[in-house]
Amino acid sequence: MLGVATSLPLTKVGAMPDAGALDRLTDLVGADMEACNRAIIARMDSPVALIPQLAAHIVAAGGKRLRPLLTLAAARLCGYPEGEPRHVQLAACVEFIHTATLLHDDVVDESLRRRGLASANAVFGNKASVLVGDFLFARAFQLMVEDGSLRVLEILSRAAATIAEGEVLQLATQNDLSTTEAQYLAVVRGKTAALFSAACQVGAVVVGRPQAQEAALDLFGDRLGVAFQLVDDALDYAGEGAAMGKTVGDDFREGKATLPVLLAYERGDGIERAFWDRTVAESEQRDGDLDHAVGLMRRHGSIAATLDRARSFVAEAKQALAAFPDSPLRRALADVADFTVSRVS
Amino acid sequence: MLGVATSLPLTKVGAMPDAGALDRLTDLVGADMEACNRAIIARMDSPVALIPQLAAHIVAAGGKRLRPLLTLAAARLCGYPEGEPRHVQLAACVEFIHTATLLHDDVVDESLRRRGLASANAVFGNKASVLVGDFLFARAFQLMVEDGSLRVLEILSRAAATIAEGEVLQLATQNDLSTTEAQYLAVVRGKTAALFSAACQVGAVVVGRPQAQEAALDLFGDRLGVAFQLVDDALDYAGEGAAMGKTVGDDFREGKATLPVLLAYERGDGIERAFWDRTVAESEQRDGDLDHAVGLMRRHGSIAATLDRARSFVAEAKQALAAFPDSPLRRALADVADFTVSRVS
Repeated sequence: MLGVATSLPLTKVGAMPDAGALDRLTDLVGADMEACNRAIIARMDSPVALIPQLAAHIVAAGGKRLRPLLTLAAARLCGYPEGEPRHVQLAACVEFIHTATLLHDDVVDESLRRRGLASANAVFGNKASVLVGDFLFARAFQLMVEDGSLRVLEILSRAAATIAEGEVLQLATQNDLSTTEAQYLAVVRGKTAALFSAACQVGAVVVGRPQAQEAALDLFGDRLGVAFQLVDDALDYAGEGAAMGKTVGDDFREGKATLPVLLAYERGDGIERAFWDRTVAESEQRDGDLDHAVGLMRRHGSIAATLDRARSFVAEAKQALAAFPDSPLRRALADVADFTVSRVS
Repeated sequence: MLGVATSLPLTKVGAMPDAGALDRLTDLVGADMEACNRAIIARMDSPVALIPQLAAHIVAAGGKRLRPLLTLAAARLCGYPEGEPRHVQLAACVEFIHTATLLHDDVVDESLRRRGLASANAVFGNKASVLVGDFLFARAFQLMVEDGSLRVLEILSRAAATIAEGEVLQLATQNDLSTTEAQYLAVVRGKTAALFSAACQVGAVVVGRPQAQEAALDLFGDRLGVAFQLVDDALDYAGEGAAMGKTVGDDFREGKATLPVLLAYERGDGIERAFWDRTVAESEQRDGDLDHAVGLMRRHGSIAATLDRARSFVAEAKQALAAFPDSPLRRALADVADFTVSRVS
C-alpha cells in the first residue's frame, strides 16, 4: 500500500485522510519496523540457496508490510515497553505467513504479476513457489515457537487454518454465480481478515492486556481486513493497473465470485445474466467482455455498493478502537482504516 | 507399506524378517493406532466440504501410516502409560504433516498415481491439492498447540522447515548429474528422514524420557528414514509398478538426481554418460530409454550399491535401539527396520 500511496491519484472525499496515513503509522513505529525488516531478511535464510533467492523476490522486494505493521502498532498501542523484542519477531512471523499464502495464491491463480513485478511463480516456476511457501510457513511456526507463548501459537495456527479454509472455499465458489453474499464474506474473512485480526490480536497478547482490549484489537483487525478485501475486489474492476501493481480484470478472468459480480448478476436482467453465465460461470471470454462487465457494474452500482459495505466495516473497525484512550497511534490506526477505502474514493 | 507387505513377492535373505514385521508392530500398538485413525478422521473435518473430501481421498484411503506408527511405538517403548492420549494426538499430527507434503509433492512432481489410486491432484486438481495441503499443515500445528508442549512444537516445526528445505534442494538438483552423494543425502535427510526422526523423538518427549533415550529414538528415526528413501529410490528402477502403487520410472522421467542414477553416471563410460546427459540432464527421453537406464544400473551395480547403503543405515538404526532394554516392541521396531530393506531383497 505504501507503493500505491505515492502513485495512486486519490480523490479526497470529505474528511477522508490522504494516503499518508500509512506512512504516519509506519513512522510512529519506525524503529520497530526496521527491526522487523531485519528479522525478515535474517530468518528467511537457508543453506538451500533457492529459498532466500525466491523469498527475497517476494519478501525483500518491498510490499506493503501492512500486517506486521498492525502487530507492531497494536503492541505499542497496548503499551508494550521499549527495548522488548517479542512483537518484532511475531510481526516477522505474520509477514512470513502472509508471504507463504501469496506464493501459493499466485500458483493457484496462475498470476504472472505481483506488486508490479513478475510474480515468483513466473520467475522461479510453480514448483519452487509451492515449496518455498511451505518453507516460509514452517519458518513462521519456528519463530512463534521461539517466542514461546502458547496463546500466540493458538491464535496464529487457528488463523493459518482459517486462511486455508477461506482459500479452498474461494476455489469451490469459483465460476459459481449462485454464491451467496454470506459465502462471499466467509471467503473474505478466511483469506484476508483472519490474518489481519490475528496480527492485531497477538500485539495485545505479548503485552498481556485485559481480554477486552485483546478482543477490541481482534475486532479492529477483522473489520479492517474485510474492508481491505472488499476494496481490493472493487479495485479489480475499477483500479488503475499500473498503480495497483496488478492487472485489472484478474478476478474476472479467473471467474472469482466477488461481490461486484454477484451484485451485478443479482440486479441484471435476462440478457445480462446470460452474459455473466457465459463469461464467469462458463469462463468463455472474448475481447471487450471486461469493459462490458465494468459497464454493467457501473449501471447497477455494484462497485459503489461494494465500497459502501467496505465503509461500514471501516466504521466498525474505528469503533473498536474506542477500547483505547486517544493517542497519536490510535488516530493513525483509525486513519489507516479510512485510507483503506479512500484509495478508491 | 502395509499394502505392499501383502502383495510384494519377497525373496527372504538370511535372517531378514518377512513383511509381517509391520503388521506385528501395528498389532503391538493396535488400540493406539485405531484411536489415531479416529483422530485423523475427526480432525481433518471442516465446514468447507472440499477439505474433508480431498483429505479423505488421501488420508482415509489407507496408506502406510508408518510415521504415526513410529510415534505410537516410540511412546510405548518409553513406557507411556495406558489411557493417556497425547501420543495419539501427536501421531495424527505427524500424519497430517506427511499428508500435506504428499499433496504438495504430487503437484510438484505432476504425479497422477499415489498408492495405486489416482492422486488427489489428478482427481481434484492442483489448486485444491495445494490449498488442502496448506490446511492440513495448519491443522497439524493446531493439534500440536493443543498438546501444549513447546518442546514438541520445536521438534515438529523444525522438521517441517527441514522437509521443505529438502524438497527445494531436490528441485534445485533436478536434472543435475553433478549432484554429489552428500547433496543427495541432504535431500533424503530433509524430504524423508526429518519427519521419521521427529515422529520417533516426540514419542520420547511425551513420556519425558532421559536425553539419551530421546536422542536414540531421534537417531533410529533418522537412519530408518534414510534407508527407507534409499530403498524407495532403488525401487523406482527395480520395483513392480502394481505392487508399489506407483509407476516405475517416475524418478527417471522427472530427472531426479537419485543415487542409482548418480552412481551409474559416475561409473559410466563416455557413451553412457552421453545417454544420461540426454535423458536426465536434458530430459529428452524416448521409448526404451528407461529399460536401457535400468540395464546400465544393473551393469554397474548401482541399484545394488544403493541397497547396500540402505542396509548400513538399517544397521545403524537397529544399533540405536540398544538404548532400550529388550522387549517385543523393541524387536518389532528392529524388524520393521530390516523389512524396509527386505522388501526389495
